Formats: sequence, C-alpha cells, structure tokens
Amino acid sequence: MTTIKEVAKLAGVSVATVSRALNNSGYVSEATRIKVEAAVKELNFYPNEVARSLYQKKSKLIGLLLPDIANPFFPLMAKGVEDGVNQRGYSLLLGNVEDDEEKGKEYLKIFAQNNIAGVISAVKGDGKDLRNMPFVMLDRVESNRDFAVHSDDYTGGMLAAEAIAKRNPKEIVIMVGPKEVPSSAIRLAGNEKVLKEYQLAYGLFQTPSFKFELAEQTAEQFFEAFPLADSVIASNDVYALAVMKEAIKRGRRIPEEFQIIGYDDMPFSRMMYPGLSTIAQPAYEIGFKGALLLCDILEKGFVANSRIQLPVTLKIRESVREKDEDE
Amino acid sequence: MTTIKEVAKLAGVSVATVSRALNNSGYVSEATRIKVEAAVKELNFYPNEVARSLYQKKSKLIGLLLPDIANPFFPLMAKGVEDGVNQRGYSLLLGNVEDDEEKGKEYLKIFAQNNIAGVISAVKGDGKDLRNMPFVMLDRVESNRDFAVHSDDYTGGMLAAEAIAKRNPKEIVIMVGPKEVPSSAIRLAGNEKVLKEYQLAYGLFQTPSFKFELAEQTAEQFFEAFPLADSVIASNDVYALAVMKEAIKRGRRIPEEFQIIGYDDMPFSRMMYPGLSTIAQPAYEIGFKGALLLCDILEKGFVANSRIQLPVTLKIRESVREKDEDE
Repeated sequence: MTTIKEVAKLAGVSVATVSRALNNSGYVSEATRIKVEAAVKELNFYPNEVARSLYQKKSKLIGLLLPDIANPFFPLMAKGVEDGVNQRGYSLLLGNVEDDEEKGKEYLKIFAQNNIAGVISAVKGDGKDLRNMPFVMLDRVESNRDFAVHSDDYTGGMLAAEAIAKRNPKEIVIMVGPKEVPSSAIRLAGNEKVLKEYQLAYGLFQTPSFKFELAEQTAEQFFEAFPLADSVIASNDVYALAVMKEAIKRGRRIPEEFQIIGYDDMPFSRMMYPGLSTIAQPAYEIGFKGALLLCDILEKGFVANSRIQLPVTLKIRESVREKDEDE
Repeated sequence: MTTIKEVAKLAGVSVATVSRALNNSGYVSEATRIKVEAAVKELNFYPNEVARSLYQKKSKLIGLLLPDIANPFFPLMAKGVEDGVNQRGYSLLLGNVEDDEEKGKEYLKIFAQNNIAGVISAVKGDGKDLRNMPFVMLDRVESNRDFAVHSDDYTGGMLAAEAIAKRNPKEIVIMVGPKEVPSSAIRLAGNEKVLKEYQLAYGLFQTPSFKFELAEQTAEQFFEAFPLADSVIASNDVYALAVMKEAIKRGRRIPEEFQIIGYDDMPFSRMMYPGLSTIAQPAYEIGFKGALLLCDILEKGFVANSRIQLPVTLKIRESVREKDEDE
C-alpha cells in the first residue's frame, strides 16, 4: 500500500503538508495542492480509514439496523440509505435484526466496537438502546424528540379506506398491523375516519406479525375469522398477497367477489396478476433522506427539521373493482 | 468507554495480563482468568475493534458485494452471509453494486481503507479486482482456482427442462440468462441435453439483463419474438413472473394454454397465484456456507474444499400442467 511518505516525496513537499492538503486543514498554496493531488493520483494513494478513525475517535462507518429482510420493502430502503451515506463518504455496517431484541443489542455493541459515527434504524423498540449515539429512525417515530424519516401513515390509511369505500364494498375487514409497530395505530385511525364518514361498518382483524413465514398461516386464520369478507384493507403488501392467494384458492373471483388493497407498494406488487392495489411508500427515498439527515447531524451538529414526513400515493391495479358509477 | 486499565485495576492484575487473558495468548492462570472475566463483565468492557484492527492490520470486517438488491434472491443470500460471519465474530460492510463495474471498484477501495479481512462477492466480473485480498465468490465461479459456493446449475437446467418435457409441451422456448452470467451457459447446456433426449424442438430467447426494472419490457419482447410459445423455461423467477403476467394479459389460461417454470424459488414465487413452478436454489445456505468458507480461509489459511456445490430442487406449483398420463 502506498504511504503518505511516498506521496510527499513525489510531490516534493513534507508529510505535514500532504496531511494538511488531504484534510483541508491549515494553509496550503494552490500550486502545492495541485502537486499533492497529482502525486495522490499517480500513486493511487488513499488514506487508511482505520488509522484515521482511531485518531478521530469516530470512523466513517454508519450502522444500519433492519428488520425482516425477506420483505422487499427493507432491501429497497437499505439501498436508499447506502446511496445516501456513500454520497457523503460513509460506508454501511449491516445489521439484520429479524425482530429479535437481543440481536439488536448485540449489533449496537458491535457497532460501538467499530467506532461507528451513527446509527440508522428501522427496527422497532430499540429507542432507549440507541440514545447514547447519534441516530435516525426510519419508518417510525418513538418520541417527539427523535430524528426520524417516515411517510404519512394517516393519509395512507385514509387513501386505502377511501379506495375501498368507493368500490361497492359489502363486508369490509381492516387487517390492523402488529401492535408493536407504531404506524399500525395511525393507519387504523385514518381507515376508521373515512369509513365512519361513509357510514360503513367494518370488522377488525389483528395481524399478529409482519414475518414473511407467517403470512400464509395468517391468511388462513383471516378467512376462519371472516369467511364472508369481500373487501379488505390489508396491513401490508406481503400479507395482502397471502390473503389474495387464499381467497383465490377458496374460489373467490378477484375483484368481483373479493377485493383487497395493500400497503407499501413492493416491487412485486405490480408484477403479479391480478396486480395488487396499494398505498405506495417511498421506501428508497425514506432510506436516502434518513442517511442525509444523519450525515447532517454528524457534520453540522444541527438540522432544521428533525422529522421528515414523506407523502404516500394510491396505486390502483386489478385487485379492486371499478369505482361506483355515481362518482 | 471503559479502558483496559480500569479492567486491570478492578481485577488486581497488570494490563498485560488482561490483554493475554482476552486474546488467549500466553499463560494466564485459571484463577486470574476468572478475575479478569468478572471485571470485564462488571465494567461492561469490550475491546475496541478499531484499535485492535490497527494493531493487527486486519479488522473483523468482511465486505459483501451484491448485485441488484431488488431481486429477493440476494437479500436472502446476504442474510446467510451475515449469520455466517456473525457466528465467527465478524461484521459485514455492505456494497450494493447494481451491475455497475465502476461502483464495484469503488467499494473495493472503501473496503481496503477499512482494512477488511476479506470479501464475499456475488457480483459478476470482478474477479481480477479481488485477487489482491482473500475472497469467496457466491453463485458463480470464474476460475478453477477461485474459492466459491454455488449451486448445481447443470442439474438445475436438466430438472427444469424435464419438468416441461413431461408436461405435453407444444412450442417450447428457453429464456437464456444474460451472457455475462456464467451460470447461464451451464443451465442452457442442462436444458438442451434433456430436450434433445426427448427429441423436442425449442426456440431460444436471449434475456438481455436480470435487472428488475427491465422485466416487464422484456416480457413484451418475448411475446413479439415467440407469439405462439406455450411452454417456457425461464431464466429466473423475476423474469418468469413478468412473462406469466404478460401471458395472462394476452388472455392465455395458465397452465392449460401457457405453462412456465422459473429458476431460484424466491420467497414470492410460492405466494402468488398461480404459484410459480421453479428450481429452488438454497440462497440462504449459499451465503452462509460462503461466509464460513471465507472465515476458514482467514483463520486456518487452509480449506479442504475450495469449491462448494449445493444441490437444487424442483418445485412444482400451479404454473405447469399435470404430467403426461403415460408416465
């Protein structure tokens, strides 16, 4: 590996001058800077991050905590985080928590051992463990003082309910998201506001978990609880797909006899047939903006908005009926 | 943060003794080890990875290069890698390359700056850039001397072709994987061997890319090229789904008028309706075994098998017909 000494020798300046030029600290003349940059380029020199990290006490690493990676929503969000931190010169240490609280704590320890600069987390319930380092939460907010990027769950809940309300529903069931996911209650409030305005009755089905492996089993339980449901507001796309498949297996025609709307707009939701109607959350953008927010906190020590809320949009596909004619 | 000095003080031993006890190097009496461990626990001390890394020249970080993260095959593989490296005390630096060669090189630079111990890569064509550090390739092999974990593509190709051959195909088309993916040619060889044995004619459609965003457009091109295709051996599950959706849009009944088999067995392939028949690759296991292989290389400097090939299995679901009666 090229050393800073070799760079200094080739540039014909001192090591201290190379260091000042590379760190943008102290005075370096323009002519000298050009010589140093030429030498850096010619020798393909890059400063050792580990040495820099030890000196500065903080590395250029950011830890990312993710829940269930089998849900394509999270890889997409991770991609946004990665592009954001890369743009600002940081790299990403990955931690897939899989809804396991102990595993989350273990990762935070590993992150600390690597002198990470900060954490971005989409994992629920780790708020108190995070509070001794800079952090940004994604897709949820646990306290008013937290830095967070999330999407507009209340509007999302309203849009989903309205899409169903306007499509001649007979028996509506809301699949409520898992209790420990903060957005569940907010989306439900949005659902209920609209259904009450339309004076429509509805049943509630509690989704026990968002785990991918449990989706099919939950879909069966759904039909045991609500065999006559014909219009479903689902808790997310994965669970909506599982319920739609179960409905088809039970001989229900989509959307004539059974219509459903999901939440998230995973890449797959548009690629299957019938295409899944859903509320699109900007997964990539949530990740990307979260990364920039954390970098601002780390570098400027100040941000104008500690909470960024992104808009959601309604995607109508084949899984719901045509709108009522009188509208 | 607790220092090693504080641990030594509480344990009533020297710093050198604490260091020997923690690193398992040199003699430490059992009684002393117990005292040190008690002090470590009481003070919640954990050695600083960055300092250790600088001293040992190598960190406990492993870099992971992944292609398109929108294909759920890769997050699942990443999960396997992560569990494997974690089990051996390493953490994962993430690099999503997105089929961009320059980005791959950039990541390798960042990895080197962080003194990573080694690289695990599922990205095609970066062989020569990797050769100055320990590395393991996943899902492909570029040279006979490489360390690699992959699945049995030839058998996979044969199984897919046999599944179609036995199901009364009228016009068979093989979607050949992108040219730059080494497994494409091997799977095609497996397909062709079987179709020739069955004396069945077939067309070839070259899949230009595995990019998620291009799947729907490619599906349209497929039907322009082969409007009468009724039995398709697809290059992967994502592209199989896109072609199946396009077939349904064109009014073809699945599987009576159009049958298709994919490759990979993504989590979603079973969850849609009709469920996609496919060749299941053990994505998680490929990642997990690849991680253990790299850790063995790093720690033992020797491994018995530099190439691990994992078996594939045929999954029959609703997207193909019943088998011919005479079998």
